[in-house]
Amino acid sequence: MPPIDAVSLTAELIRCPSVTPVEGGALVLLETLLSEAGFECTRVDRAGVSNLFARWGRRGANQTFGFNGHTDVVPVGDLAAWTVDPFGGEIRDGWLFGRGATDMKSGVAAFVAAAIDFVKTTPPSGAIILTITGDEEGDALDGTTALLDYMQQAGEAMSVCLVGEPTCPDTMGEMMKIGRRGSMTAFFTAKGVQGHSAYPHRAKNPLPALARLMDRLASHELDAGTDHFDASTLAITTIDTGNPANNVIPAVCKGTVNIRFNDTHSGESLSAWLHQEVAKVSEEMNVEIDVVIKVSGESFVTPPGELSAMISKAVTAVTGVVPVASTTGGTSDARFVKNHCPVVEFGLVGKTMHQVDERVEVAHIEQLKSIYARILSEYFQ
Amino acid sequence: MPPIDAVSLTAELIRCPSVTPVEGGALVLLETLLSEAGFECTRVDRAGVSNLFARWGRRGANQTFGFNGHTDVVPVGDLAAWTVDPFGGEIRDGWLFGRGATDMKSGVAAFVAAAIDFVKTTPPSGAIILTITGDEEGDALDGTTALLDYMQQAGEAMSVCLVGEPTCPDTMGEMMKIGRRGSMTAFFTAKGVQGHSAYPHRAKNPLPALARLMDRLASHELDAGTDHFDASTLAITTIDTGNPANNVIPAVCKGTVNIRFNDTHSGESLSAWLHQEVAKVSEEMNVEIDVVIKVSGESFVTPPGELSAMISKAVTAVTGVVPVASTTGGTSDARFVKNHCPVVEFGLVGKTMHQVDERVEVAHIEQLKSIYARILSEYFQ
Repeated sequence: MPPIDAVSLTAELIRCPSVTPVEGGALVLLETLLSEAGFECTRVDRAGVSNLFARWGRRGANQTFGFNGHTDVVPVGDLAAWTVDPFGGEIRDGWLFGRGATDMKSGVAAFVAAAIDFVKTTPPSGAIILTITGDEEGDALDGTTALLDYMQQAGEAMSVCLVGEPTCPDTMGEMMKIGRRGSMTAFFTAKGVQGHSAYPHRAKNPLPALARLMDRLASHELDAGTDHFDASTLAITTIDTGNPANNVIPAVCKGTVNIRFNDTHSGESLSAWLHQEVAKVSEEMNVEIDVVIKVSGESFVTPPGELSAMISKAVTAVTGVVPVASTTGGTSDARFVKNHCPVVEFGLVGKTMHQVDERVEVAHIEQLKSIYARILSEYFQ
Repeated sequence: MPPIDAVSLTAELIRCPSVTPVEGGALVLLETLLSEAGFECTRVDRAGVSNLFARWGRRGANQTFGFNGHTDVVPVGDLAAWTVDPFGGEIRDGWLFGRGATDMKSGVAAFVAAAIDFVKTTPPSGAIILTITGDEEGDALDGTTALLDYMQQAGEAMSVCLVGEPTCPDTMGEMMKIGRRGSMTAFFTAKGVQGHSAYPHRAKNPLPALARLMDRLASHELDAGTDHFDASTLAITTIDTGNPANNVIPAVCKGTVNIRFNDTHSGESLSAWLHQEVAKVSEEMNVEIDVVIKVSGESFVTPPGELSAMISKAVTAVTGVVPVASTTGGTSDARFVKNHCPVVEFGLVGKTMHQVDERVEVAHIEQLKSIYARILSEYFQ
């Protein structure tokens, strides 16, 4: 069996129109390929979502290296704006185009190719587990969590896990992610009494209270950052009233803030702070302010250690770049994996993800496969 | 000629469906009545709006008492919610119902009836001028201003003027208006750079700047009131962004404030203040903030004097109530008349104006006619 061509495999995966939650043939393709290479494959489908669990080697091996990724993609958006078929997998001037080219069919292809080549050429004493989901871009309720639930029931376990999401902002190799900030959103509703602008004392205007609260929250420094995290941030995302009449004081005004927080805080501690600030302004301004808080995820970190050291070494060997261990960015399925084992993310340059004409440098896919191969060698040496 | 029945005349006027800018027969009715009584009538129509100028006595008389009012009315609104025909002029339990019953066909009927009776019974040496417009509830561009323009061209002048708008909040006789506050609206647009909530340093969020500006403006005490005016007020009327995505920092946010100001300020001085506050916050927050200011009217006052004293005396004689000289409320055509001569407003209880089932106590119309009659007697004695 010749080495697997990760570029061709990425192109083949792009040709599978697997917009969440459609499987689109992507997982079937991978299951076939992995089965042929001696991986024990299990389809873990839940609530209409397809996922693939694949293991090479013995269940419960002491040394089990895990990869995690997804084959589902976001919709193409404005099709007319694409200069190529988003599901064509076309290569032009050294770039492979298509939805999922960056996020993250290339990453999946790279670790599948690296894993198959590795077990063929230098069969390790331990095991390799691939968890590939079809529900990362959607609600992610039945994707990686379904795979982890299955693993727990089946007695499957990864010792460490590498998530193949794009992690480099601009230059190949520059960044890996060892954790993520938490994310929460607070929805405020200030309630007053409607009235005429000419008689404000007969009304109770909720807007000054909401404006003051928003100013207070946005002006507050949550922290100055920690060992592994940037400073937490708070962004007011919207304030809305919808009152078209200049001579009317409105009864209700709504505002929303989104907080990305590091390990100084938790969803609970920040909720307490928000409630406290609301109570203060509410009392100062004599206006009722309701708040509904939704915590999307707590912060987490896999402190720099064996796994990140291996990744760093491999990345530097292949690209000449020393990757920064970062915790920036949004959320990924690493937030589920971190409950299972140490997890680090490393992948391609993510610049064009979710955009029109999403594309990846062909050479970067080759580099990524080499990096994953070196990590496997190092881990099992 | 028997005395004119102001209640019947009000009912007849209500039966003329004169929703701005439709004349509806109201001015024709008054013109006929006044002409028969010896008033020299001129229809001053401009840009599709009808207005009536009527004078009894000699043009340019030293003592010329003026009345101002309007026969146009606001639309009926939710017709199904009315318990009577809004153009029926029906009397029930001592109340006369209909659109314009309060604002202000009753006021017009009362001063027309008082004026006709007065010139019939005790013809004065001076003159009486009635300026009655069909465009007060609309843009008011071709109403009282058209009448005043006509008067200037024709060499007509009022020594003083009484506007018959409803001025009493709850109790008949309790309030006359000797001026009005100014009104202006400022429209703010804060402009930043859109971005992802997780990376606020790469975006420029306009919302904290707008929230701070709104808090500053709403917290500022413009003044503590003056001899004839309440304190000026500022009301934030709306703040809008329209961003539904919690993970997006929006590029633009808009806010509006409405200011009602007394003679401490002018549209110009307040505009300067607003621009100054905008510049401060804009610099503090490094966000561009545009402001567009629309001054609807400057404040004005006819300080208590001969006219208000006469009105007060007549009101007290008829109702037993001493009217307060107030400058509260929105705008009226007095804002145009004040450029021509001293002007004071006195009329009915305005509680139901512009509402469904607008209505007036029949007894109040009689009282109002008596008050206007006493004022004429006093003025020409």
